[in-house]
Amino acid sequence: MPPLRNVAIIGVGLIGGSIGQALRQRGLAGEVIGIGRRQASLDKALAAGAIDRAELNLEAGVASAEVVIVATPVDSIADFVQQALAASDETTWVTDAGSTKTAICADVGPSAAKRFIGSHPLAGDHRSGPENARADLLDAKTVVVTPGETTPADLANRAQTFWESLGANVVRMSPQQHDRALAATSHLPHLIASALAAATPDEWLSLAATGWADTTRIAAADPALWAQIFSQNKSALLESLDRMVQQMDQLREDISAENWSQIEDTLQQAKRTRDTLGN
Amino acid sequence: MPPLRNVAIIGVGLIGGSIGQALRQRGLAGEVIGIGRRQASLDKALAAGAIDRAELNLEAGVASAEVVIVATPVDSIADFVQQALAASDETTWVTDAGSTKTAICADVGPSAAKRFIGSHPLAGDHRSGPENARADLLDAKTVVVTPGETTPADLANRAQTFWESLGANVVRMSPQQHDRALAATSHLPHLIASALAAATPDEWLSLAATGWADTTRIAAADPALWAQIFSQNKSALLESLDRMVQQMDQLREDISAENWSQIEDTLQQAKRTRDTLGN
Repeated sequence: MPPLRNVAIIGVGLIGGSIGQALRQRGLAGEVIGIGRRQASLDKALAAGAIDRAELNLEAGVASAEVVIVATPVDSIADFVQQALAASDETTWVTDAGSTKTAICADVGPSAAKRFIGSHPLAGDHRSGPENARADLLDAKTVVVTPGETTPADLANRAQTFWESLGANVVRMSPQQHDRALAATSHLPHLIASALAAATPDEWLSLAATGWADTTRIAAADPALWAQIFSQNKSALLESLDRMVQQMDQLREDISAENWSQIEDTLQQAKRTRDTLGN
Repeated sequence: MPPLRNVAIIGVGLIGGSIGQALRQRGLAGEVIGIGRRQASLDKALAAGAIDRAELNLEAGVASAEVVIVATPVDSIADFVQQALAASDETTWVTDAGSTKTAICADVGPSAAKRFIGSHPLAGDHRSGPENARADLLDAKTVVVTPGETTPADLANRAQTFWESLGANVVRMSPQQHDRALAATSHLPHLIASALAAATPDEWLSLAATGWADTTRIAAADPALWAQIFSQNKSALLESLDRMVQQMDQLREDISAENWSQIEDTLQQAKRTRDTLGN
């Protein structure tokens, strides 16, 4: 990829900060500008080597940018995208890093299709903040890019090249396809991890070992961020949840009926699925 | 702990092998004897430094042992305990490493209370076999020791000292208390991890990231072993499963009703519970 002019990152947390570090370490941008609401967060991002310059003023921050990445909580993304589009000219394109896509792309609106395309880097952590950013966070990770029906091929290609230059593998699908798939592979696991943690009686927690720790790990993530994600992907999440409830009902029935060979078959099918992913 | 005479380990897999390695590296036993049905497994245990000597014959293996540890799949533990008791004299005591306790202790029977006490080291891994054994597997881990009503205090103390000498922290509770607690902290998480993996459509697996990987990790464990564990702890598992289903029903209702602040509260409660455990 030819070096970009400036890149502006709105919201320099774990994801935004990691993108900034990767851009800087790989020398991919003239300048990386971090845009945030609080100076304290921007100072952390500067200290983490995630940005070259901090800006509290969005208009000033995006004015010189060739690319703007909005990496804020999902509820605020569409609004920041619109502000970034309004404060920049036709040579600036905008993408985001949100965990949901349908609501964001719809809220931004089809009139922005020439300059905005949705993205979702499948790289996170239960820790947050620029202090946990890592330049290799996207290395060999998948980034979903979600062109709409009127997105120009050129914009989709530029977004793909951008993420690939940070080390990621890009797949393209519609915002709706993305949300259905991610409901199953990310939002449901989060809901389940939280339900399991919440359903564990406190007095037995001292007997929790690796299995409980692994299965509930993502329940440590930020509750407000995840409530937003669930709210933006309500119908696909319910669809995935119903598939899970059906699976659990069947297991409950098999356990009650002492149908152990059927249970072993289900565990075997689960193991096959799990084994395809590796550790 | 004064050094033990010989220690015999029946079933030298991940747990048995790790106990053997720890005994040998800490110089705690005269000889560590591995007892198994297949020479190939015993050879792996020898190669892993888990045992001093391999025995295919149980009677010969336990004859000189001061302590016998049965670390086989739960279905076969009670039988091996009885064989070990029959093949040794009053100076030999026996314990096990099974994930369930009520059925095993009942099957061994109260007449063995002077020489058998149940144990459960809360240390496992989704990998198995002596080749994955580690001398530090029990380091700072919890081992539950489950005296019955007629277990002599002296035997419980000896079992506690044994596990502590391997680096573990010991807690004591009845077999029934153990099974109710472990249903919630270990058996249910396993069932949930497997249900989640089984409920994930194959075509979306390429979009699974860290969250899915963590939440389903233990679904990679041995299906036959876990079907046995579920079968031995059926009623407590169903009780835990019902608590989980109730939690999920409530979450489903809150999502349907778009009661996002209630959902955020539930996620917050789950996070608090999860955070008490650390990473």
